[in-house]
Amino acid sequence: MAPSLADVFLSEVLGTATLTLLGCGVVANALLARTKGFAGGPLFINFGWGLAVFAGVYVAYASGAHLNPAVTIGLLVSGSDYAPGVEATLGSTLVYFSAEMIGGFLGAVVCWLAYKKHFDATEDGSLKLAVFSTGPEIRSYPWNVLTEVIATFVLVLVILLFGRTPAALGAIPVALLVVGIGASLGGPTGYAINPARDLGPRIAHALLPIPGKGGSDWAYAWVPVVGPVIGGALAGVVFYAFPVLS
Amino acid sequence: MAPSLADVFLSEVLGTATLTLLGCGVVANALLARTKGFAGGPLFINFGWGLAVFAGVYVAYASGAHLNPAVTIGLLVSGSDYAPGVEATLGSTLVYFSAEMIGGFLGAVVCWLAYKKHFDATEDGSLKLAVFSTGPEIRSYPWNVLTEVIATFVLVLVILLFGRTPAALGAIPVALLVVGIGASLGGPTGYAINPARDLGPRIAHALLPIPGKGGSDWAYAWVPVVGPVIGGALAGVVFYAFPVLS
Amino acid sequence: MAPSLADVFLSEVLGTATLTLLGCGVVANALLARTKGFAGGPLFINFGWGLAVFAGVYVAYASGAHLNPAVTIGLLVSGSDYAPGVEATLGSTLVYFSAEMIGGFLGAVVCWLAYKKHFDATEDGSLKLAVFSTGPEIRSYPWNVLTEVIATFVLVLVILLFGRTPAALGAIPVALLVVGIGASLGGPTGYAINPARDLGPRIAHALLPIPGKGGSDWAYAWVPVVGPVIGGALAGVVFYAFPVLS
Amino acid sequence: MAPSLADVFLSEVLGTATLTLLGCGVVANALLARTKGFAGGPLFINFGWGLAVFAGVYVAYASGAHLNPAVTIGLLVSGSDYAPGVEATLGSTLVYFSAEMIGGFLGAVVCWLAYKKHFDATEDGSLKLAVFSTGPEIRSYPWNVLTEVIATFVLVLVILLFGRTPAALGAIPVALLVVGIGASLGGPTGYAINPARDLGPRIAHALLPIPGKGGSDWAYAWVPVVGPVIGGALAGVVFYAFPVLS
Repeated sequence: MAPSLADVFLSEVLGTATLTLLGCGVVANALLARTKGFAGGPLFINFGWGLAVFAGVYVAYASGAHLNPAVTIGLLVSGSDYAPGVEATLGSTLVYFSAEMIGGFLGAVVCWLAYKKHFDATEDGSLKLAVFSTGPEIRSYPWNVLTEVIATFVLVLVILLFGRTPAALGAIPVALLVVGIGASLGGPTGYAINPARDLGPRIAHALLPIPGKGGSDWAYAWVPVVGPVIGGALAGVVFYAFPVLS
Repeated sequence: MAPSLADVFLSEVLGTATLTLLGCGVVANALLARTKGFAGGPLFINFGWGLAVFAGVYVAYASGAHLNPAVTIGLLVSGSDYAPGVEATLGSTLVYFSAEMIGGFLGAVVCWLAYKKHFDATEDGSLKLAVFSTGPEIRSYPWNVLTEVIATFVLVLVILLFGRTPAALGAIPVALLVVGIGASLGGPTGYAINPARDLGPRIAHALLPIPGKGGSDWAYAWVPVVGPVIGGALAGVVFYAFPVLS
Repeated sequence: MAPSLADVFLSEVLGTATLTLLGCGVVANALLARTKGFAGGPLFINFGWGLAVFAGVYVAYASGAHLNPAVTIGLLVSGSDYAPGVEATLGSTLVYFSAEMIGGFLGAVVCWLAYKKHFDATEDGSLKLAVFSTGPEIRSYPWNVLTEVIATFVLVLVILLFGRTPAALGAIPVALLVVGIGASLGGPTGYAINPARDLGPRIAHALLPIPGKGGSDWAYAWVPVVGPVIGGALAGVVFYAFPVLS
Repeated sequence: MAPSLADVFLSEVLGTATLTLLGCGVVANALLARTKGFAGGPLFINFGWGLAVFAGVYVAYASGAHLNPAVTIGLLVSGSDYAPGVEATLGSTLVYFSAEMIGGFLGAVVCWLAYKKHFDATEDGSLKLAVFSTGPEIRSYPWNVLTEVIATFVLVLVILLFGRTPAALGAIPVALLVVGIGASLGGPTGYAINPARDLGPRIAHALLPIPGKGGSDWAYAWVPVVGPVIGGALAGVVFYAFPVLS
């Protein structure tokens, strides 16, 4: 049975909240003071994000589990439906976008609650921001955008391609894909590859009463929005343009 | 064929014993002196626990492999059956609870036998307790409970949702879910997310003749019981309340 | 079509050789001098062994992919066939045992060839032996045997139980199981859990012209044979005795 | 519907480009200066390469996803078709070879773009080359070739054997296989196991304007071509020669 747009909204809010709760959570575990996962390393963080997507997909199964405006855009551009029974229209697109952003915000708030005492115990404000949002290791907006375009292009293209194979693997392939993109293309910018994953938590960071939190780096905030939007749209174009891929 | 309650009991005892044997085992490997896995790091421990659940699910397949009173409570509250042919009643609930606790206890005893010489070789009593039971990195009962509530809510909600997807993946999804929750939400308290996993081994710690073992931290023992019970019940409520999830 | 005993022999030789080639290989990568995997850590080694089993199972698919006398014994005791069309008889049992030992030996020889220059570059003879065979971190034969019994019991019991679930997952479950047993129960003795995996390579170590190799620790060699044999037989008994498991 | 040779060409170019983009990417993340994955360790790199293959297989699904001349040769020698509806002929073989090489080159170029600022920030030219192509830890051409023969033999043989099992697992088995081969047999030479993965990026390294890049080590360049070609052909012979394997 096709979900209503209200169902879609709720589904994507809950799914994207699960995504950022667990995704921001693994960064908190690796970076904040006095955690059990302190200094867990990059593979630890990559698995955390991959499995955050994994859990989020099950939560948002009814709405196709976009969890990411770049995925929504990729489906729109490629001419696909958003989910069984949910067509891509202006209205449904706005529902997905708003639900993803709100979910991304809410998950980060819950993550902050789960790690409240460790935020308080951490001195470095930049580490607190890193739990919420991505930032570049070498700041250079054009190159940072390009890295996000490339990484999101791979993400969305391969997601569009999952439908071709006979496997019934649930959310495992997309989880593995996110682990892989993080390991391979996360080095320069921390692979936002999702505007809602980055901007939603950044707003949470700005609003929450976190002692010693420092700034929210709004100068960078457009990069993990614009890069993934371009990358997702490009993936939709390529998927549509090359019949050998579909 | 529906299992009898005696079958359920035996199945959950053996499955939960497998869970704590392997789960406590990976902590022993990472923390005790002179092991091959010494200082294996957080991802190592998270995979160990995830795969402990994986093995336990196969052992307790006949009874639905709860292995965890929080899962039992989540199923109860959501109005689900406990396993094919096993309804949720007061009697069956008590069978699951008691079997889970006894299994959790027994697995920890066998783990102690497997690592006997390494318990003897370890000086720090707090490390010996950490093999058996969880403890907070920053002690603050309200926040510790909240972290356990959040982590268990995610665990039980996603387990309830696994049934919606077409995949036939055996115990792999729940194993990955536990790896992910450990990586993402295990930082503050060590993710008990299961009263039987924590209290059963804690009782074993208190009873076993472990040289230099120190106290069993009974002051904290209620946290990994109460938090998971609340989290599992909340997940059952949410699953029941939002039809888009079921 | 049922394989002949000659087919079984060849299949198990090739499969067990793949197992010890890759399994001993990851230890070589982690321990020998000047490798790219030097000091890769316990999870690295556990994944290497798990995926060694994974590859070996595909190679020995026609014969049921025992790759391990403890598995053969578990099937024998539980009253199962060895593979579709291959009954458990004295003759077939001896074919499995001999093929597993010969395969274990051959794989270790090929591993030595792959890492020849790194064996030559390593000074410590005990590291060279560790590539081939397991050894205890704390030598205590009764406790070392017990650890191997427990770990092999879990391995064989869960393998016997895989058949109950509807999943068609190829060799992934057994690979994950071996990763998990290594992480959780490999700390004291290095989880031989397989007489052929240990004794075959130990014989290779004794025969190969490895400069500065030191002794083959024959005093310990019976432990990773006797422990797994007992553990596998116990698993077969338990599987047979508890109908709730079958 | 059988793909045309033009489809095959495009499919293998895109798939192999995905492979080297992500595969070279994880090495860049682990080795170059100021990345988030710096010093991520061997398991991190092995997972990166395994999941690079994973993504590449989905992209090149229409053409059978060889992504590797050694796989093409293995299929040719074993008498298999290259993909459903694509026979092994001189013409189709050359299409696969050229597409794999061009794709390998292009993916490395995009990887360089993604990590541009980090190539610039890295001083050691040998690290820059290591992102593109493999090199031995102990240079000894005969032994280096042998290691590549052995590792590629395992890769191609097990890929040929995947068809025997009932699982519908998409690209997960080959991803795990590559993780395992990297962990187990990657220690001496870095497991090229694929001429296109090594030579394509090496040409990119030679042509791209990378500051301070140093030489492209052409003296070694034949090893990761000849070794994998021999290994793949041997796997095809063994697969064909032993009916128990097919």
